[in-house]
Order: sequence, then structure tokens, then C-alpha cells
Amino acid sequence: MTDAKTDALIVFTPSGKRGRFPLGTPVLQAARQLGVDIDSVCGGRAICGRCQITVGEGEFAKHGITSSDSHLSGFSKVEERYAEKRELKAGRRLSCQTKLLADAVIDVPPESQVHKQVVRKRAEARVIDLDPATRLYFIEVEEPDMHHPSSDLERVYKALAEQWDVKDVNCGLGIMKVLQPALRKGNWKVTVSVFDRLPGGVKEITGIWPGFHEKVYGVAVDVGSTTIAAHLTDLATGDVVASSGLMNPQIRFGEDLMSRVSYVMMNPGGDREMTAVIREALNTLCSNVAEEAGITVGDIAEIVLVGNPVMHHLFLGIDPIELGGAPFALATGMAMTRLASELDLNLAPGAYCYVLPCIAGHVGADTAGVVLSESPHTSEDIMLVVDVGTNAEILLGSKHRLLACSSPTGPAFEGAQISGGQRAAPGAIERVRINPETLEPRFRVIGSELWSDDPGFEESIAATGVTGICGSGIIEVVAEMYLAGIINQDGQVDGTLQEKNARIRPTGRTHSYVLRDGEPFIAITQNDVRAIQLAKAALHAGTRLLMDKLGIDEVPKVRLAGAFGSHIDTKYAMVLGLIPDCSLNNVQSAGNAAGTGARIALLNKAARDEIENVVRHIEKIETAVEPMFQQHFVEAMAIPHKTADYRHLSQVVTLPPHKTVITAEADGSARRARRRG
Amino acid sequence: MTDAKTDALIVFTPSGKRGRFPLGTPVLQAARQLGVDIDSVCGGRAICGRCQITVGEGEFAKHGITSSDSHLSGFSKVEERYAEKRELKAGRRLSCQTKLLADAVIDVPPESQVHKQVVRKRAEARVIDLDPATRLYFIEVEEPDMHHPSSDLERVYKALAEQWDVKDVNCGLGIMKVLQPALRKGNWKVTVSVFDRLPGGVKEITGIWPGFHEKVYGVAVDVGSTTIAAHLTDLATGDVVASSGLMNPQIRFGEDLMSRVSYVMMNPGGDREMTAVIREALNTLCSNVAEEAGITVGDIAEIVLVGNPVMHHLFLGIDPIELGGAPFALATGMAMTRLASELDLNLAPGAYCYVLPCIAGHVGADTAGVVLSESPHTSEDIMLVVDVGTNAEILLGSKHRLLACSSPTGPAFEGAQISGGQRAAPGAIERVRINPETLEPRFRVIGSELWSDDPGFEESIAATGVTGICGSGIIEVVAEMYLAGIINQDGQVDGTLQEKNARIRPTGRTHSYVLRDGEPFIAITQNDVRAIQLAKAALHAGTRLLMDKLGIDEVPKVRLAGAFGSHIDTKYAMVLGLIPDCSLNNVQSAGNAAGTGARIALLNKAARDEIENVVRHIEKIETAVEPMFQQHFVEAMAIPHKTADYRHLSQVVTLPPHKTVITAEADGSARRARRRG
Repeated sequence: MTDAKTDALIVFTPSGKRGRFPLGTPVLQAARQLGVDIDSVCGGRAICGRCQITVGEGEFAKHGITSSDSHLSGFSKVEERYAEKRELKAGRRLSCQTKLLADAVIDVPPESQVHKQVVRKRAEARVIDLDPATRLYFIEVEEPDMHHPSSDLERVYKALAEQWDVKDVNCGLGIMKVLQPALRKGNWKVTVSVFDRLPGGVKEITGIWPGFHEKVYGVAVDVGSTTIAAHLTDLATGDVVASSGLMNPQIRFGEDLMSRVSYVMMNPGGDREMTAVIREALNTLCSNVAEEAGITVGDIAEIVLVGNPVMHHLFLGIDPIELGGAPFALATGMAMTRLASELDLNLAPGAYCYVLPCIAGHVGADTAGVVLSESPHTSEDIMLVVDVGTNAEILLGSKHRLLACSSPTGPAFEGAQISGGQRAAPGAIERVRINPETLEPRFRVIGSELWSDDPGFEESIAATGVTGICGSGIIEVVAEMYLAGIINQDGQVDGTLQEKNARIRPTGRTHSYVLRDGEPFIAITQNDVRAIQLAKAALHAGTRLLMDKLGIDEVPKVRLAGAFGSHIDTKYAMVLGLIPDCSLNNVQSAGNAAGTGARIALLNKAARDEIENVVRHIEKIETAVEPMFQQHFVEAMAIPHKTADYRHLSQVVTLPPHKTVITAEADGSARRARRRG
Repeated sequence: MTDAKTDALIVFTPSGKRGRFPLGTPVLQAARQLGVDIDSVCGGRAICGRCQITVGEGEFAKHGITSSDSHLSGFSKVEERYAEKRELKAGRRLSCQTKLLADAVIDVPPESQVHKQVVRKRAEARVIDLDPATRLYFIEVEEPDMHHPSSDLERVYKALAEQWDVKDVNCGLGIMKVLQPALRKGNWKVTVSVFDRLPGGVKEITGIWPGFHEKVYGVAVDVGSTTIAAHLTDLATGDVVASSGLMNPQIRFGEDLMSRVSYVMMNPGGDREMTAVIREALNTLCSNVAEEAGITVGDIAEIVLVGNPVMHHLFLGIDPIELGGAPFALATGMAMTRLASELDLNLAPGAYCYVLPCIAGHVGADTAGVVLSESPHTSEDIMLVVDVGTNAEILLGSKHRLLACSSPTGPAFEGAQISGGQRAAPGAIERVRINPETLEPRFRVIGSELWSDDPGFEESIAATGVTGICGSGIIEVVAEMYLAGIINQDGQVDGTLQEKNARIRPTGRTHSYVLRDGEPFIAITQNDVRAIQLAKAALHAGTRLLMDKLGIDEVPKVRLAGAFGSHIDTKYAMVLGLIPDCSLNNVQSAGNAAGTGARIALLNKAARDEIENVVRHIEKIETAVEPMFQQHFVEAMAIPHKTADYRHLSQVVTLPPHKTVITAEADGSARRARRRG
């Protein structure tokens, strides 16, 4: 057999990488040498099952080779054992146990790739390329030898270098405390998580588990002034395996951001109290999501946080007092990678916390998260992204130029400082319709699918009753009051109606509209209308200011982020002039974009570089020092504000005849309306 | 004036660096451009006075130029003000205020150099080149501008880059908490300390002070099992400005190391208690030295620590249990740079702690400090360096090859486990002489210069009385007992003497020598002699083992480190065979070499690289697995052990006629003694 071949060609799909290897070479080894992206935690020991492949059958004309199962070593005992204990789909092989016997085409399915893509729910949203900063490595560590004394840690480093080519690794005190018991419990076999996104290219061991440990997790957290939301994510798949939310316990120090800053001003050391409670809340949240997923907090090796500047500072333990007044200087806005333990978070012993960068004194890391999620900085078209909370953060621009500002809407959109207002929670009125003839309202409350005039409504809300009105409800009721003629363009409640209709009642020297004449009694007062007018004028003025800066009059795409964006009916947002004229089709809710941005940063190292870079190049506009802001604000107080266009609304809401005439256009496109009457 | 010169030559001494500069160039600026080592904290603002120079007068043939005061700008108003407020010696100028008007030779005195040499007390000790990891920078920071929002920290980084060319700077949470108040208090002028010895070449701000801050300090600490010693050091001059010692509070958990490890074994969590008390003691020490120097702990930006492996682990919060039994595996022995705050140390808000590397499970970071201080790794001659504590750490070698081991001497040399023993403290007997005729003793105690038979002795020790006998006292008394014939070569107390002399008394089935027949009664029992024999045999065997490995029979140089080395009379160490035969002239005490090593590492960045590198190359010998160790040990039990040479002792001690005959040689050199009788 002088012509017997001693090597064979192997071609990997989908990468197309190919090479010749000696017969008998394990497929995983060939893949590694060719730089093919195949995952493995156990390093070829048939434990983790991450390195599964399928063999391409038949004639591969493209590659000029014939491939079949027989070109590889047969299904081994080791694979049989693995298949019994875990699961191995038909046709799947463990590439670490499969040897090359003749030319072969090998397909690496997406689940076996390290750098797979994570699918997001919204079709239009950017795809997340999985490339987390944390990876697991199973290692076999040499035992201590008195003839050649060396420390346990040195032998761990040696194993990482020799078995995984992972070098320049560091290790913090948290890991050192648990290193020796883990090595001994695992009989000198352990799994370590290594974090690879520290300044200077240093790597660090963040977790250690005796024996083989299959999964490591990260948490993406959005620290809002009102609620904190956490998403536990499998770092190998990108899947969110548990989510949980919690009220921000700082609320007891002040409902909104400025009242919390005031609390610090009045109570020196108050920042430390607020830092302590927010960190405690994060620990509770992490415990909750870990429990839900059936893991321990020790399996969480990373946490990524976003939050507005005040939350950012308080979480980091920085007094936010400078953010309470001009010039609104951040102590730091730069992205930060710190030990979780330094922030009193109880996760894996060496876990790291990454905090996204803040953009400006009023535009925080939450907005940076929105940028990552909605990616205006990569968009060819100009996008408007609005995240409404106590303030509205506004982003406008495209890949060519991106601007950001914060506009002082106040908390009215969140239901605060409104007579019957409350946060969005079961029992809150969230939808309102007013009959323009009778002025009779009907409404829906969170927790029920029924309208208040549907049969069975009262029973459907028996658990909570009606407790108040939340942000989206207030916007709708004010818009409906306007459409029903109860308030005029200036927002004034028409007191003359009280003679005809009992829903209109005097309240001091002004008038209110009674939304619910029961217990609780809920009326929309003149002050409530004013609060909404001020809020929507601020939002509009901020948007308009950025549009001026960009020199544009129309916005092709609008994304509404945050709870506000999720709950609001965009029609009503447009009636009130919250967002500028554009086709409603181009207005989309972005959901919790800030939290999604945190998750993107968690799952992709490069996204951290990306957002740190983008934030440096965003043009920060401070509304307080822009003379045009005030002018736009004053102009935008009226309802509908002067540039609004309601043509597209004609299909969906009944417009009062004494107001703007709306003419629907076939293409639904946005053009400046001519107003009559 | 067409031929008027527009530039001039400037020559700096002692560096010899030279260059031409436009007339009017400040001397400091010229120096910086030429890379001349001139210190400055204020960056040329005539505040710090660090940049002082003198002008070279007259003809400088060597440089071919004439230099005089007139070749520089006259003494300025700014310098006058500085001289009034601070001090400016005659002839001194501030180089930042002195302008070049014609060719000049400028001398930079040592005090004005950053990289000056630090003089050590012992003439033979290595010189310390000052190059600390921490430097101060005075900066003027831009105020926040709402038109161009940026965080305070970003503007601090900008100032460091623009005013000092210091880039890639990082900042931890500790500094971020104090950054904003410091900037505002200093009216946007602050001094920052920057630490420049982190993995990956990252720099970090470790301290921030409003306005100009002149001094920054470091602390070098030797954490001994018994005592902790701290030296506060001015990082700009290298001067020790305050020192303080404290008993190690862990003593309440166990007198010696092994009993502390046992405590952990018996009391799970006991390591955490010991970690807490050691860190608390370090904070107390740092407060003490700061107070003594009239500064605050906030002025201490660095701390460098050495300690034996158990202290090392307990300080770092690592359970030392693995060090309590074979194979004596360290969790980690690598040098470590961690935030001081992570170790619960209250220093400057971003201060760093550097812990020297351990060499092996029994040879700790304290021995690494000894290496740095005594530098056997740079010595052409072979050196023996012995550091005696509870165990003896032994280093033997030269620049070509260096070995280390630890020998289990037990605590007898420290006065522990000896019937009348105690630690070296006022009241302890430290010197003993026995009249070989009468067997009457005389002694000295710590705290008095008088011998016990001097007039006024009792009054001189009235404050303490005689409290016990310390390590050096025990060594002397056993050697003197041998020289007086009370014990024989095997260490047996000659019971027959009890009939002639009341100092010899039966104690159970053996006999004791009564050193003090008062209150307290102090006798040297047969067990005490045995303890010293075991200790000295262990020490000798360890040394001998390393000598075997190196293939040598004699040691040219011996250094005795630690308290033991400082207190012991080397004659007696040789009588007992604690150290191998060599000329007494070549035996030197190295003082607290471990602590000195810590100070060297504190003052010189490169020394950290050096010791980390040397430690990797030291050959670690584990006595427990070396068969020859046991053999040497058994052989070394006798007094004097079999290879001892006492010729050089003939001048200083009276030798008993029935023992070795010592013949003094003119050159005092060591040769193997012929023994008679």
C-alpha cells in the first residue's frame, strides 16, 4: 500500500475554512488549528457537549470532495456514554471524539459556535453577536509537589496556559479565598470563568467551581428611579433565563430624582444611605433571578448596569449633589469596570460589574443603553429616539452625526404630581375615551382587558379596584378632553360646560373634568392639564432644538423607549404633540431599550468599546443654555402645538369639528397641516 | 546687531546633558526637553520648590563655555516671594523661574532629582535608587462648561495629559467619591498622586488634595508573627519620617504560627477573625506613624507589606489551613498589587497595597524582603543569609545560583517554650556570663546597661524587675553552661555537680542550672537545653543541606537578619554551631532586613520587578523531603557540633580546659579545628 494516504482534507461549514491533517486527527483539534469557531468548555474531554458537529454527506461539488460518515471514526463509547447521560441529537457527533479518516465536510451548527447570533424579539432590532467577556474553561491542575514547590494559583495559571493557551491571567482576593477548597473538592479538576475585558488587556479569573461546571451567567440591570429590572442571561447562549423587577427602595428618600438629590443636600451622608439601599436591592434582585433559574448567585460572573446620572452616581457611591444644579457636572461619565464586591454585590467571588458610560449631566448610562439597543449611530436614516422618564432623554441623528439632550418634562408622564396620578400598576387607569357628544368617559385599568362600560368590568378589577390614573392614561384623557372640546388649544378647561354637563365642575377659580365620580374620586384639574402641557412642551422643545441643530424639519423614524414608550398609544402622543410630525407607521415602541442595551453590552465585548466610543462623539446639547429651547417651549404649550399634523389620525380618532381639519392622505405621509377654523 | 545670538548652550551637571535653546527659555523647560532629571510637583508654578538648581561659575574648560549668574535672568520677584515663604539656600534658584540668557552650566543638586539615591545606615548595604511608583502632580483643571458638557474626571485626565504628559490614567471609586469636593475646594487646582505600577501598564489616581499638596507618603510594613513594624516614608526623599511597632494581636489566637493554623482548624471562620485583627492593627499602626509625623493617613498613598506565608495569607484573607501540613501548598505566592481599601486599610482613597512574593510554603514574603535588602542574587561571593523567627529561613548562594529553605527551629530562639523564656522586652535577660570556676552567673537585662553584679543594678531595673529570659539570653546561657562544663557535648546537665554547687539542682530525673534564685526563679532545665539543641541542629542542618546542594564546605559571608540577628552575640551563635564555620569578621547583622526589603520595594518600582523575577529563579528546597536533612540534623545535636571551629573565640571567651583547644590564628580565618581531649 505505497499509495496509502496519510492525511486528509477537512472543510468546515459555514466558515469555509479548510486544511489537510494527518489521519486520526480529532475534528476539534483540526478546527482549533484552522481557527474555526467551535465552542468547548471541557477542552476535548467529552464532558461539556458544546463541540457538536454534523458531517456533510455525499458529493460536495463546491469542495470537490466526497464526504460521508465513513470518512470519520465511528460513534465511540465515549460518545455513547455522553448521549446516555446528556443528549445527542441524531446525526450529531462530539468533534473532540471524532477522528478524521478521509476527506470530510463538517458542519458546525450555530449552537456549537462561540460567536453565535442572538435573536431579538423585534424583527427590526439589531442582531446581537455573542462574544461575552466571560468564558468558562475546564482545567486539570497539577497537584502540589514538595520537591518542586509552587503555589496552587501558579499551577492554575499553568493549566490555563497549557490547556487553553489563555495567558496573562490575574486573580483577585475573592477567588484566592475559594481557590484551595475548590481545587481539593474537585480533585484538581476545576472550571474557571475568565473575564477578558480589563484595562491594559489583563484577564482575570472571576469564578471557580470544583470539577466540570457547565454554565456561567451574567445579569443586565436597568436601575431606574422608580423600578429596577434585572435580566439573568446565559452567557453561552445569550438567552434570558429569568427576569425580575423591584421598586427602587430609594423612593422613600424622594419620589423623583431631584427630591433625592435634595435629600442629600438636607441630610449630609444621605447619599450613603441611598447607595446602601440600591446595592441591597440589586442583591435581592440577583438572588431572585438566580432562584427563578435554579442557580446560585455564585454562578453569576458578570453584571452590566445602566441608569440615569443620579442613579449611576448613587450606585457607585458618589454624592450626586453636583447633578442637582448648574452646571450639572458629572463626577465621571466614563464607562467603568469594577469588581462587583467593591460595589457590595454578592455574585461569583471575582465577578465584575460594567457600568455603561453617561453621556452628559442629564443624559445617563440608561440613554447609552438606548443608543446600543436602537443604534441610531449606525443608521443611514435620521432617527429620533425618545426615552421618557422623569426627564425625557432625546437622541436625534444617524451614523453621520448624533445629538443628545435631556428635556425637563417633570414627572407628569409617569403619573406623578397629577391630582389622581400614580405609577403604572394594577388598578391604574391607562386608557380613556370621552364621548364628544355626552362627554361621558370610559376607561380601562391595568389588570383588566375590559372597558369600564363593559359588562363584568367591576368584577374584573375586584382585586385592586380603580386606584388612580397613570402616565398613559393622563395623556389619553387630556388628548380626549381636547378632542371633545372640554379644553381649548391653550389647555383651558371650558367652564361654561359646567352648566350643561355635571362632568365639568368648578375647582377653586378653575374647572375640572370628573373622570370617575366614585371612590376614589378622580378628576382632571386645570393644574393636571397644565402639568401635561408643560411636560409635552418640554419634550417637543427638546426634539425641536435637536432638529434645528441638524437643520431638519421632519423625522423619518421615531422610537419611543421605556415604559412610557411601551404603554402609550402613539396616536395620542401625536395629538398632544409629544413627538414631531411623521407617519404613525414609522413610530415604534423600543420597549426597555436601556435594559436591552445593558444586555447587548453583557453579551458582546465589542459593544462596550462601541458605546464608549460613540458616547465620546455624541454632541451633547444642554437645553438650559440654548435660547431657542425656551422659545420652542413657549410655542409648544398649545394643543395641538403649532406644527402638528393630524391627517393620519382621521382614521382612528374622531376630531371635533371646531379644530384642525384633518385630511387623510393615501400614503399616510407626514406633511405640514393646513389648519382651518 | 546682526550677529546677536538668539540661542544659547545649556549644560546640566551631573548628567552632562546639553542642548541649545532660544534665549529666554526657562531652565526647567530646557531640562525637561533634554530629559534631565529635575523634580517638580507644581509644574513650573514656583510653588513646590523642588526644581532648585545652582549655576556653575567661571570657565568650564570641559564644556568650553563660560558660565556665570549673569548668563541667567536675575532673581525674580516670584523667587523672592518663594524664598520669604519657604526657604531658598544661597546660590539656589528655582529653575522654573530662571531663564537662559547666554551659555550656562547648571548643576542639579541631589535633592532636586527625582531619581536620587537613598543612603542606608549600613555602609555595605545596597543603595536604594529612588523611583517610587507614586508621584504627585499639581494640576489646574478646566471648570465645567454647560456648552461643552464633560465630567470632572475627564477634565482631570485632560489636565494630567496636557500639563504633565501623563496619559492612560484610571481612577477607582475611592477617588471618585472625593473628586468633586476636592476640585471645588481647591478652586479647580488640585494635587493628585498617580500610581504607576499596575498590570498592563495602567496608571491610577490614588489621592487628590485641594490646591497644592507637597508631600505624599508610603508605609513599609513587616508583619511578623509576634510584632508588626511600620515605617512611614517620604516618597520624594526616601526618608523614614516615623516608625512604630505593635504586638501582633493574633497572639491571642496562638503564640506561634502553627497554633494559629490549629486555631483555624478547630474554629471554622477563625481565619476571618485573625484577618480582621491584623488589618485593624495595621490601621492602628498607620495612624500612629501618621500622627507621629504630623500628617494624616490620607497622605499615605501606598503600603508595601512583607510577612511569612501564614501572615501573608491571613492578611490577604486566605485561609492558611493548607500551610499547616504537607505539601504546604500556598494558595498564591505571587506578588500582589491590590487596592488598600479592598484590604480594609484606611489610607488615601485610592491607595494601593503591594505584597511581596512568597518563595515557598515555608519561605514567605518576609524572606523575599530579606533577599531585596541583602541582595545575595547580585553578589559575586556566596552569601548565607539567615532570618530566624519561629522557623529559620535560610538563603544561600550568589548571583549565579540562589537556594532557599526553611528549617523548623521551633520558637526556642524567640524565648518561647523555654521554662523561664519570654520575648525580647524590657526585663528579659539577654546576656549571660558564667564563671567557670564558681559557676556563678552574671547577666544583663533589656532596659539596663548594667550587669547584675554591678553596683546599682537593682535600681536600674526597678521599673520592670527581671521578668524572664529571651532568645539571645538562652543561647548565651547554654553556650556558657557548655563552656563552664555544666553541660557536656551531648547537652546533658552534669548532675554530679549538684554536690559541689547549689546552682545545680535536680529537676525530676534530670538537673537544672539556677540562673536566678529569686523572684522570679529562673532555671535552665534539661528540657530547655534540649529545645535549644533541637533548634540549633535544625538551623545547622538547613544550612548544611543548602551547602551540600551548592557543593561548598565553607561560607565566605554570613548575614543574620531579624531581631535574632540584631540581638545575638555572634560568638555564642558560633559556639553552639548555629552558623557554619567562618571568620567572625564576615558575620554581620542585617537588622530588620525583611522590613528594609519592603522599604526598597516601596521606593523603587524596578525592585518589585526584580524581586518577582528573582523569586521565580530561587531554588526552593523543602527540608521535609530531603533525606540528608535528617542526617545533618542528628549530627548537629551535639555541642559544639562536629565541624565547629573555635580558634577565633580564644580572644573573647574563656574556654574550659577539658574541651576543644582553640588556637588563635593571626588572620582570624576559619579552618577546620583539630580537637583534642
